[in-house]
Amino acid sequence: MVSEKMHTLGTKKSTIRTIFEYGKKRAAEVGAENVYDFSIGNPNVPAPEVVKTAIIDILNTVDTCELHGYTIAPGLPQVRETIAASINRRFGTNFAGKNLFMTSGAAAAITICFKALHEDGADDEFITFAPYFPEYGCFVESVGSKLSVVPANTEDFQIQFDKLEEMLSPKTKAVIINSPNNPSGVVYSEATIKKLAGMLSAKEKEFGHPIFIISDEPYRELVYGGLTVPYVAKYYQNTLVCYSWSKSLSLPGERIGYIVVPDEVADFGRVYGAIAGAARVLTHVNASSLFQRVVARCVDEPSNIAAYEHNGNLLYNGLIEAGFTCQKPQGAFYLFPKALEDDDRAFCKKAMEYDLLLVPGSDFGCPGYFRAAYCIKESTIRNALPVFKKLAAEYK
Amino acid sequence: MVSEKMHTLGTKKSTIRTIFEYGKKRAAEVGAENVYDFSIGNPNVPAPEVVKTAIIDILNTVDTCELHGYTIAPGLPQVRETIAASINRRFGTNFAGKNLFMTSGAAAAITICFKALHEDGADDEFITFAPYFPEYGCFVESVGSKLSVVPANTEDFQIQFDKLEEMLSPKTKAVIINSPNNPSGVVYSEATIKKLAGMLSAKEKEFGHPIFIISDEPYRELVYGGLTVPYVAKYYQNTLVCYSWSKSLSLPGERIGYIVVPDEVADFGRVYGAIAGAARVLTHVNASSLFQRVVARCVDEPSNIAAYEHNGNLLYNGLIEAGFTCQKPQGAFYLFPKALEDDDRAFCKKAMEYDLLLVPGSDFGCPGYFRAAYCIKESTIRNALPVFKKLAAEYK
Repeated sequence: MVSEKMHTLGTKKSTIRTIFEYGKKRAAEVGAENVYDFSIGNPNVPAPEVVKTAIIDILNTVDTCELHGYTIAPGLPQVRETIAASINRRFGTNFAGKNLFMTSGAAAAITICFKALHEDGADDEFITFAPYFPEYGCFVESVGSKLSVVPANTEDFQIQFDKLEEMLSPKTKAVIINSPNNPSGVVYSEATIKKLAGMLSAKEKEFGHPIFIISDEPYRELVYGGLTVPYVAKYYQNTLVCYSWSKSLSLPGERIGYIVVPDEVADFGRVYGAIAGAARVLTHVNASSLFQRVVARCVDEPSNIAAYEHNGNLLYNGLIEAGFTCQKPQGAFYLFPKALEDDDRAFCKKAMEYDLLLVPGSDFGCPGYFRAAYCIKESTIRNALPVFKKLAAEYK
Repeated sequence: MVSEKMHTLGTKKSTIRTIFEYGKKRAAEVGAENVYDFSIGNPNVPAPEVVKTAIIDILNTVDTCELHGYTIAPGLPQVRETIAASINRRFGTNFAGKNLFMTSGAAAAITICFKALHEDGADDEFITFAPYFPEYGCFVESVGSKLSVVPANTEDFQIQFDKLEEMLSPKTKAVIINSPNNPSGVVYSEATIKKLAGMLSAKEKEFGHPIFIISDEPYRELVYGGLTVPYVAKYYQNTLVCYSWSKSLSLPGERIGYIVVPDEVADFGRVYGAIAGAARVLTHVNASSLFQRVVARCVDEPSNIAAYEHNGNLLYNGLIEAGFTCQKPQGAFYLFPKALEDDDRAFCKKAMEYDLLLVPGSDFGCPGYFRAAYCIKESTIRNALPVFKKLAAEYK
């Protein structure tokens, strides 16, 4: 009667969602202050005041019919020019408005790329790297293709290149990278990006067709300790950049982002055209006309990274002191420490007994680890630290 | 390298778009006042002031993190309750928030329904009625199913039931109706809806499975001459209602609408679940968190139909006077008169010589007619009427 697959996708709760809902229930029982919920990656830093100012100013100055009217499918030309100019200033690129396609967020952006690149009925595939955002699998499969996952490099959460090389094949349409990474909190180094670009270029020649990098960058602005995030499109020609203001301006509910298709991609016109077609059939043309204008006005607004950096360091130092091993916070708002037993699901269950709500690494294709989101109240982290110590003591 | 199909869909301009762009060019040559552009269905009535008031009030009263944060996938519970209550008040239905799934507009809503109902790999089909919105074809095909079109009933643009009956088969997943109709401007009568419900119920029994009505209702509020639009879900159990505030509140650029899944549908849980799954993989969960709140506050705001009704009557009377035959304006903001020669494309080309920009009925699966959108300046209609007369004279 209905699609079995869609029914399953719509009713099977993710572990994250289940933990989050448990947390709400538990908070009602024992008090919110006694539940340490590290499960959800929802920005806790409010959108900067300039967002509100921009909305009100736009409402007061733009003709109402024009403001809320249809824009052309890829988005307002002036908005795209403004965003391109900002990217150019910051990363030394050379984009124009015509290189951008506005989308309702990064999930839409990457799914449009999958749909644009996958050839109906073809036995092609996309490759990503553990640990990874599990929705990638749903999105890739729903366009009819297949997602293959390179196992995690748990040394430093860069890339296991020997494994990647084995997996690259003539079927490979694209590799998806996400740096700063959800869930590892790690930023791919310039060396990693260069090596990746070199390997893919060589494979492109070997196979005689392009292999795209889909660079999923919603966390690009959230980096700490003076790190910089290499702008992937500068290192590799066939890069499609997927961006969202969900994290950088704390606007996840407003669904606003873009795809960049650089001039340098193999046959720009065909790629951009396929992206436009995919956006059309996925009914993602014309991202919110108000929020297109809002982000254009806020395009150079710095993200409030100080709060996240403070939280990240607080949690990191506390976990290290409690005996955990973990990468230093580099970007995004997650830590991805090693679980204190091999079975990360059992470990997270144990942590739950202490009202520490953590997400098993298995959910991100990386067993033996757990994710702790630190986009939460500082006091929650502070109060959780002694509890982490107690939990660790149980494993000693 | 990219999907050929997506490339074609993304680069082949629609006739409407081509005409519209020609109009812009022509206006630059001969002056905007000398071009009579009836091509585009973009509301020319501004959003009511209450939209602006609601946005500002929401910005001033809702916590910023909450306001722009993720909502749950189907949308804010309180928003859905408010909308359900409004539908119930107006149509005597019995919906609750759980019957609604917020979407980014009606195109997203219907595509989610297609994806939810189509079984991967199954040889199923959807049926609609000419004249129809041509994007239905793209959307249905992109989920892997097939769209069949019942030829137009050009008598009164109700339904050709004998043709529908021939086309209904065990493969039929759903029929899509759009009343008030784009492009015919006709509202399906209660008799039509009752007859449709009766025929589908009989076929459901015959085939032993549900046949859904997908009721695409973005024009529901725009009706004239005291007509009422029967609320389809009250006449037929397996109805999925797809709505958008694009036209009723003149917010087409903001992408906000919903799907109603009534309790009465066969196996509510499975249908709603499949819709949630389809929204997930089409990356249409969590419609704009600001505009969810805005429409909830404006849910009982009447549409400004007076302006459209005035325009519709002005154009209708002028066309009749010029010798055209046409249904009276009933709803939406389109007239769909008979072309003055059999070849509607040739007719629209001829009209273009007079700077009358009209869309051939063939584009809506109904040759021999043309669409004239009257959501434009009254003065444009007024000035166009003598030109329609000149055009008609050429055919005498």
